Amino acid sequence: MADRPLVGIVMGSKTDLETLQSAVDVLNDFGIGYELRILSAHRTPEKVLEWARTAEERGLQIIIAAAGLAAALPGVVAAQTILPVLGVPIPAAPLAGVDALLSIVQMPKGVPVGTLAIGKAGAANAALLAIGMLASSRPELRKKLKEFREKRADEVLQADASVQRKK
Amino acid sequence: MADRPLVGIVMGSKTDLETLQSAVDVLNDFGIGYELRILSAHRTPEKVLEWARTAEERGLQIIIAAAGLAAALPGVVAAQTILPVLGVPIPAAPLAGVDALLSIVQMPKGVPVGTLAIGKAGAANAALLAIGMLASSRPELRKKLKEFREKRADEVLQADASVQRKK
Amino acid sequence: MADRPLVGIVMGSKTDLETLQSAVDVLNDFGIGYELRILSAHRTPEKVLEWARTAEERGLQIIIAAAGLAAALPGVVAAQTILPVLGVPIPAAPLAGVDALLSIVQMPKGVPVGTLAIGKAGAANAALLAIGMLASSRPELRKKLKEFREKRADEVLQADASVQRKK
Amino acid sequence: MADRPLVGIVMGSKTDLETLQSAVDVLNDFGIGYELRILSAHRTPEKVLEWARTAEERGLQIIIAAAGLAAALPGVVAAQTILPVLGVPIPAAPLAGVDALLSIVQMPKGVPVGTLAIGKAGAANAALLAIGMLASSRPELRKKLKEFREKRADEVLQADASVQRKK
Amino acid sequence: MADRPLVGIVMGSKTDLETLQSAVDVLNDFGIGYELRILSAHRTPEKVLEWARTAEERGLQIIIAAAGLAAALPGVVAAQTILPVLGVPIPAAPLAGVDALLSIVQMPKGVPVGTLAIGKAGAANAALLAIGMLASSRPELRKKLKEFREKRADEVLQADASVQRKK
Amino acid sequence: MADRPLVGIVMGSKTDLETLQSAVDVLNDFGIGYELRILSAHRTPEKVLEWARTAEERGLQIIIAAAGLAAALPGVVAAQTILPVLGVPIPAAPLAGVDALLSIVQMPKGVPVGTLAIGKAGAANAALLAIGMLASSRPELRKKLKEFREKRADEVLQADASVQRKK
Amino acid sequence: MADRPLVGIVMGSKTDLETLQSAVDVLNDFGIGYELRILSAHRTPEKVLEWARTAEERGLQIIIAAAGLAAALPGVVAAQTILPVLGVPIPAAPLAGVDALLSIVQMPKGVPVGTLAIGKAGAANAALLAIGMLASSRPELRKKLKEFREKRADEVLQADASVQRKK
Amino acid sequence: MADRPLVGIVMGSKTDLETLQSAVDVLNDFGIGYELRILSAHRTPEKVLEWARTAEERGLQIIIAAAGLAAALPGVVAAQTILPVLGVPIPAAPLAGVDALLSIVQMPKGVPVGTLAIGKAGAANAALLAIGMLASSRPELRKKLKEFREKRADEVLQADASVQRKK
Repeated sequence: MADRPLVGIVMGSKTDLETLQSAVDVLNDFGIGYELRILSAHRTPEKVLEWARTAEERGLQIIIAAAGLAAALPGVVAAQTILPVLGVPIPAAPLAGVDALLSIVQMPKGVPVGTLAIGKAGAANAALLAIGMLASSRPELRKKLKEFREKRADEVLQADASVQRKK
Repeated sequence: MADRPLVGIVMGSKTDLETLQSAVDVLNDFGIGYELRILSAHRTPEKVLEWARTAEERGLQIIIAAAGLAAALPGVVAAQTILPVLGVPIPAAPLAGVDALLSIVQMPKGVPVGTLAIGKAGAANAALLAIGMLASSRPELRKKLKEFREKRADEVLQADASVQRKK
Repeated sequence: MADRPLVGIVMGSKTDLETLQSAVDVLNDFGIGYELRILSAHRTPEKVLEWARTAEERGLQIIIAAAGLAAALPGVVAAQTILPVLGVPIPAAPLAGVDALLSIVQMPKGVPVGTLAIGKAGAANAALLAIGMLASSRPELRKKLKEFREKRADEVLQADASVQRKK
Repeated sequence: MADRPLVGIVMGSKTDLETLQSAVDVLNDFGIGYELRILSAHRTPEKVLEWARTAEERGLQIIIAAAGLAAALPGVVAAQTILPVLGVPIPAAPLAGVDALLSIVQMPKGVPVGTLAIGKAGAANAALLAIGMLASSRPELRKKLKEFREKRADEVLQADASVQRKK
Repeated sequence: MADRPLVGIVMGSKTDLETLQSAVDVLNDFGIGYELRILSAHRTPEKVLEWARTAEERGLQIIIAAAGLAAALPGVVAAQTILPVLGVPIPAAPLAGVDALLSIVQMPKGVPVGTLAIGKAGAANAALLAIGMLASSRPELRKKLKEFREKRADEVLQADASVQRKK
Repeated sequence: MADRPLVGIVMGSKTDLETLQSAVDVLNDFGIGYELRILSAHRTPEKVLEWARTAEERGLQIIIAAAGLAAALPGVVAAQTILPVLGVPIPAAPLAGVDALLSIVQMPKGVPVGTLAIGKAGAANAALLAIGMLASSRPELRKKLKEFREKRADEVLQADASVQRKK
Repeated sequence: MADRPLVGIVMGSKTDLETLQSAVDVLNDFGIGYELRILSAHRTPEKVLEWARTAEERGLQIIIAAAGLAAALPGVVAAQTILPVLGVPIPAAPLAGVDALLSIVQMPKGVPVGTLAIGKAGAANAALLAIGMLASSRPELRKKLKEFREKRADEVLQADASVQRKK
Repeated sequence: MADRPLVGIVMGSKTDLETLQSAVDVLNDFGIGYELRILSAHRTPEKVLEWARTAEERGLQIIIAAAGLAAALPGVVAAQTILPVLGVPIPAAPLAGVDALLSIVQMPKGVPVGTLAIGKAGAANAALLAIGMLASSRPELRKKLKEFREKRADEVLQADASVQRKK
């Protein structure tokens, strides 16, 4: 259903897919095409560089990069492209993703990575932020985003109603 | 020199301007028009809501929101607009901005804030990430971004050369 | 048994109810009427504002606001009312509520949120603190509070007695 | 100008006065009478107990307790009275008040301390929260609180105006 | 088998007994008499004070005090007696005992609490440190302590031997 | 004025003396003899072992060991003697003594180190706790400790009086 | 299959073996001989010193030392030998190995311990780093290391391929 | 005096040189040749890769890589070479190097970075650890390392002597 990939999703390890599925689901819901890649800044660095360097010419408009522990991947990707890069810290024992959060968000001046929350909420939000960026030139995405927000609001309203009935 | 504002910059307090000047400087360097506002999620909440809600119709395409301590502003702005919101944690004693970082980055699923590093590096990077987003439909910005990257790389190369000469 | 609501309890998500039940139980035990609402600072911001802004005229005297992660709700509520606002950080993976604690307690000068412990103990204590506030003009609540304290003390004394018998 | 003390302010050490002056100033501005005491949970424990135990009969309605390091004072006071107790963590090297924050906010179920931010902002907010509590039966305080909020909002608006002019 | 109590063990809650059993076991192994009490700094403060104030005249020589969360008990006990007080932080969700550790160890100048590790290792070590103190005037305890150390060393040596055999 | 050394004070580096002077001052005030040594667990390990191993036969009754960073000294000393060992974490950039605190307090089961607060307050308290231990067989020390406590209480009372006069 | 031990592995407790098995497995895979010892800096300090002091003359070229909590072992070993020492922090409740990490990595100037990640990844990497050191004079190890890297890269490539097929 | 470079030192920014001078000084003292480079993982990634990839063939035997904030450099270098890589976290506001420490030490399985302490002590120790590695095939370095250790021990002994004289 999704057309030409606009979003690149890259993660450092197969196990990160469990977290990133939240991003994939959001993109599928919005009908946004994406590339999904497992490439490691530490184990397949050349592949990362090649993929990131050619992202713009392949037509990607935004990149979502996720990693855990000493999470270099988002920054390494951001260093190779001027496309906006969004980072998702993967939670992992023993530090629960605090290491990944600091490794991703504390980028030095000049090479930004827009960082989302640790874990699945962050992965879903990376996709939503990417869609928000794409929406600037796609009115139908703006409409869908507003509907998504309304649906989320409705869930709260229903929970609110049900908690009041129960009382 | 800058035309119609495309980026909205909002901060919670006048003292945050010292940090955000880095963002302003970058936008000026790239010739990107911006709105610069001091609006507080806790002291002038209605102003924040009105400003955020009407941001899209005023033609803004991206919002940079900065706050310190219990930094609600970026999330509150993000709740009112589908425009991409980037958050900058302001460092402040006694917790050095860790409180602001967690208050901004740990957004729940559904309302993303792309978070940058604590302080000036983060502020500059928020502007650069905003420009990266705007660049998708503005080839001249892509060119400028690449030149900016090259200049930064040159600075490193010169430092590298000078350190080798000195040895 | 409870008359006109004096305490407003608001939480950001249905799942927070598990934590806040401790507050509800305490209010029920003391016969204090309350409003119980699920309203999200990030997903239903207008509802939050409207509810908080009209809290005083509806006769509420204290508000208990609970949220997890980037917990903006207590501060956003406090920005809309001069009623005393008590905040309860909800524990949630991966940061165990430290993010929520800092997001709630580190409010800037001018808009206070009296913050309780992370989780169920904090929720129960928010209710007890609210009752302590209401008690200033309600002698029967003062009596009940003292009885509650005595009961809690008795539990300790019995545990103390049993541990000494066992030895 | 202030009449009979309604608020008790207690701190563990003379040096804490620098932080608590923010609370004193707010109470003076609102014309609220207060007791100001230096009493230490660890050095003059009996004085603390006697003062806290008799607070209610002396007509105090709220207590603000501040301490640094292993900050036992607020909890020890709260254990002796059913009056609402607000806690202010004093920042002190080497842990910047994180020790005091956790020592005050993490009270066990049954004995609440409503905790404010570390340092001066927290001290001022403790006074404002106390006034918010007193205001429930004092319409003139509600009016003053609203005026205070408006003044604070005006400061933001003026800063906002000045930053826009300068641009 | 144990004679007149020399060590007082006090904890804030019945559930702390699970942790403190390690201290009790060590004291039993060394034949040291002890008082075991559940007394809460926040729920039965007078009992704590009375018990601590009279500890010296009852013949106690050392006190072990354990508590979790905002762990005021060890410091409050230390404020009432010149007997040496050892503190054991009880681990408890959500902060794993870090709150208790800081609440116990960061005592201000003048009222020391010798703090041990969080949890069972700390509880056992509090008992061993108490025995080390008692041993200064009890040669038989010095002998037993040395035997205890040797037994612990033997366990390591056996583990070492077994791991080398296995290889 | 001090007779035969009863307390051994050992630190890892000359710069730690600034912190430990607080312990020395307290011991001098109480007329307790002490050994003062600079011995490093990492740079002069044999000297540490020899000193610790012979401490008991030299008549020492308690050891105060202080170190910063990866603070192994207190534990290494405790491993060589059954004398009670008290540990003082030295604050040092960049981690403000948190590294030293955890390196000292988190000792495994079997080898206790009674840990005091980070820095000068902890150093003074180590001396006071040592005196409390020595006092069990020295009535004159008990008297002096009580006088010390009273003097500290008087300081608080005077501060309290002065703050009330000023008001 | 492995010849004369070149690597010494030492851990403080039998339970650490579960973590260190990752190091053992790597050394076995590369055919590197090793000594495997359980020796405790706090319970068998003399054994540690003797083992470390004689390591060089026994022909060991690198030492891997692992410990949890107040993890003194790696530093104590490093103080006794000029052989390179690599440290592995063992994760253990309640602080998840943060205590061990700081106790190992924050060594003072003069006695280095090259520290790896907390837990199994760190243990495996300690072995790989040791092999990297040995490889400088062993071309066949260089070849094996490169093959190991390629195998790891292949795993990523296969995961990448499989995730693209599935999509 | 130094012959062919055996150690590569690389840092991400000119300002890091202040910290790394400690490493340079140690290498100079030991007469070890080194390459000193400023190359940024985020600003000149290709230069980093090329430099790291060719390090082995240029005759380097060990690499010391230092970086601050989201410190990707050491890991990125380690991914390109099988030479041993030692990492030095550079302290920088606002997080004092904790971000850099976690970004460097928490490397995933397969690509080790031996991490030293934050700041100058860590930089000096990286050089010493590198020399320890080189010493396995260079007896004169072993001798020098032992002399270095003795000199450091002598400094402690002299400080110890001076502190005892003064008393």
